[in-house]
Amino acid sequence: MSDIHDLDRRYVFHPFSVAQNHQQSGATMMARSAEGCWITDDAGKRYLDAMAGLWCVNVGYGRERIADALADQARQLSYFHGFSSMATEPAAILAERVISKAPEGFSKVFFGASGSDANDTQAKIVWYYNNLRDMPQKKKIIARDRGYHGVTVMSAGLTGLPGLHAGFDLPLPMIRHVSAPHNLWTRNAGEDDAAFTARMAQELDDLIVAEGPDTVAAFIAEPVMGAGGVIVPPEGYFPAMQQVLDRHDVLLIADEVICGFGRLGTWFGSDRMNMKPDLMSVAKGITSGYAPLSAVLVGEKVWSVICEGSAKYGAFGHGYTYTAHPVTAAAALANLDIVEEENLVTRAGEMGDYMNASLKKAFADLPITAETRGCGLMAAVEFAKPHGDSWQKFDPAAGVGPRIVRAALEDGVICRALPNGDAISFSPPFTVTHEEIDLAVSTVRKAAGTVHDALRAENALAPQ
Amino acid sequence: MSDIHDLDRRYVFHPFSVAQNHQQSGATMMARSAEGCWITDDAGKRYLDAMAGLWCVNVGYGRERIADALADQARQLSYFHGFSSMATEPAAILAERVISKAPEGFSKVFFGASGSDANDTQAKIVWYYNNLRDMPQKKKIIARDRGYHGVTVMSAGLTGLPGLHAGFDLPLPMIRHVSAPHNLWTRNAGEDDAAFTARMAQELDDLIVAEGPDTVAAFIAEPVMGAGGVIVPPEGYFPAMQQVLDRHDVLLIADEVICGFGRLGTWFGSDRMNMKPDLMSVAKGITSGYAPLSAVLVGEKVWSVICEGSAKYGAFGHGYTYTAHPVTAAAALANLDIVEEENLVTRAGEMGDYMNASLKKAFADLPITAETRGCGLMAAVEFAKPHGDSWQKFDPAAGVGPRIVRAALEDGVICRALPNGDAISFSPPFTVTHEEIDLAVSTVRKAAGTVHDALRAENALAPQ
Repeated sequence: MSDIHDLDRRYVFHPFSVAQNHQQSGATMMARSAEGCWITDDAGKRYLDAMAGLWCVNVGYGRERIADALADQARQLSYFHGFSSMATEPAAILAERVISKAPEGFSKVFFGASGSDANDTQAKIVWYYNNLRDMPQKKKIIARDRGYHGVTVMSAGLTGLPGLHAGFDLPLPMIRHVSAPHNLWTRNAGEDDAAFTARMAQELDDLIVAEGPDTVAAFIAEPVMGAGGVIVPPEGYFPAMQQVLDRHDVLLIADEVICGFGRLGTWFGSDRMNMKPDLMSVAKGITSGYAPLSAVLVGEKVWSVICEGSAKYGAFGHGYTYTAHPVTAAAALANLDIVEEENLVTRAGEMGDYMNASLKKAFADLPITAETRGCGLMAAVEFAKPHGDSWQKFDPAAGVGPRIVRAALEDGVICRALPNGDAISFSPPFTVTHEEIDLAVSTVRKAAGTVHDALRAENALAPQ
Repeated sequence: MSDIHDLDRRYVFHPFSVAQNHQQSGATMMARSAEGCWITDDAGKRYLDAMAGLWCVNVGYGRERIADALADQARQLSYFHGFSSMATEPAAILAERVISKAPEGFSKVFFGASGSDANDTQAKIVWYYNNLRDMPQKKKIIARDRGYHGVTVMSAGLTGLPGLHAGFDLPLPMIRHVSAPHNLWTRNAGEDDAAFTARMAQELDDLIVAEGPDTVAAFIAEPVMGAGGVIVPPEGYFPAMQQVLDRHDVLLIADEVICGFGRLGTWFGSDRMNMKPDLMSVAKGITSGYAPLSAVLVGEKVWSVICEGSAKYGAFGHGYTYTAHPVTAAAALANLDIVEEENLVTRAGEMGDYMNASLKKAFADLPITAETRGCGLMAAVEFAKPHGDSWQKFDPAAGVGPRIVRAALEDGVICRALPNGDAISFSPPFTVTHEEIDLAVSTVRKAAGTVHDALRAENALAPQ
């Protein structure tokens, strides 16, 4: 074990890792350098990063232009804040640029440093808004099972994954969840899109009515769910959900942290999924992960109330030291230059179609492939046990997804095992080539085949 | 109004600003460039920044070395994450370096991107810790009036300032507050340090006993309070508080976001204030604000429980996309190189002594100077109405502090008006010179004198 591994093992408290294992065994992989879609570790081994980090390095690694933008801005104005109406130029330019790409009706940008803080800010905005409208009881926020909205005390509760709640006393009491529109596990046998969508909308309506519409403030949803399983809703799902929300005066918050800035082949996931949100959260793609930056986009309907609220509350009592940080804003501007000049939004749509078709074709003949799904450059293959006409989840203790991911990593491809089932996700940089997609797909297919054979040998494919 | 002001006014949702005013009047100051302690705005006017941004630009603006570190790291490895035991070199090196400066007993570093998220993480760690110890009721967190701990739903509640609660339904129900050890407003007439300290400790003990010690998990405190008024506790305050905490098995969280990395003339404020924390939060000074980075430092007592908890909960279900970001870690390493090579921690202590003495001398003869206080390179002058042997706060509507700050800004010095009273704060870069301190002090003294004369003319100094 080299010195750097020892430092990491001894001093770094790793996120979403098993503390005891890390303490004992140390890092799975120590990244040293990266270029395009490729990471090189400290031993010189190269990996194709089919996840773009954590769904974020949209323009690929190692872009000189963003590195230069970081340095140039740090030399010119390395920091200033936005409190008390102080301002900096990069933040003002970026705000206008973000709004120019957003759906109609958005007018203001509140900057932060993570998707988690953006969704935390959303809750505060929503409560502030309804206090100003003299509706102090209208505060509950409805999220979805499998939704991923971050890890602050507030946003981890919005996240609909048990692994983020257990041990942390979450979610907070004003949070509710409805079902994910999960084709594999939520759709009833024989249910078509229209019926499935109607049932999902009815569940939302029933919950709002049961809670009391005067107690429900907002509904938060990712256009396509990311970490919860790459769940693509059926056609018509969001318009149907939106009718329910409108009926009960409930705001729609689009969590665009993964989908925003092109991953679905449109500037925002809302565009592709026919969502008409009142508020949007963005992060990852705004800088392609080169610097921590997030933003809440506020629609005019909410903003006009906040603005009037100045008379009651004075200054809006919220903001981060690094809200509107000029260096991170400069990184975002350089990143968006690249996205636009290289037509990467269109490319993400086209390469996404190729990736999704390739995955479908490659995994069709594997007996444990329960579903291959995706939209744009987000995809997942879910593995399960054949069980008559349907599917049965593997025992989580068998770690089928993680085994496939480890085998692929061994063979030089980075993908990700998602929780609550055995789905493996793909979310490469928008610059990914056909050859790189072919390599990712074939490597993971081979890994899945090997694990399938091992499961059969272990007699783990027999129905329980 | 130039174009950039128009973009800012139309599209940026400013933190801690009056929305309606900003919408109408736009930015107070548009920062364009900065060097050392000096900011230049878009009209070419220069300002001495006596606040180091927001208590953060410790090494001063425009450091080539940090700019180069940002760019070099972005070229080499622009991003990678720490989930699932993945690792990067800069984060491992930085973690060891931070621990090497920390008080004895600290062993692990969890990285984030803001002081707010660090304190939010603290709450989650504390709850997880007591769940693992089979004490599921032991969850309340006690903070202090005037404490500033951030703005997430959780951390804004820990913050003890009404302006961060009003309109947001905060604090959350598991949060309590005790008094700030505020010499001017909390100390009883004739009470010496020992009696004042004993009373503060008794108040904490009474609260814990009233709530039930088996329901109280942690106490959070800044070594010297920042935004709440630059409140320096009396000698012996923290040891007395700590005795109470130890008696009731309550963890101590030191919020070192401002004090950490040298501002009090010691590496951590805990060193100077005789605190023995179990957990520490750091941010600002770790990068001097050049990049958004924070960290939670975990002591061995808590870490050993988390580690054992792996058996129960598996992966620790918490972490940010930008946890352990290699680019922000590289900025921190370059920043700490500067701090060490230029002996800036020692310098902060020495220049702090000079600044505090200068402020005392300059403001002693102004009739509205109620108190001049500070420690290291943190200081405040508080203004109030003479009222017999004591002081009366000005009507907040009179905005005495903000008027002085505006007058000083007009004359080219940036300082800050703090809430709940009329204190004005000073927190310059550690590189500040004697001449720059003289200029800041004399400019603000002149501004305060002008406002004093105006108040007298307005007959606003008469007791009510």
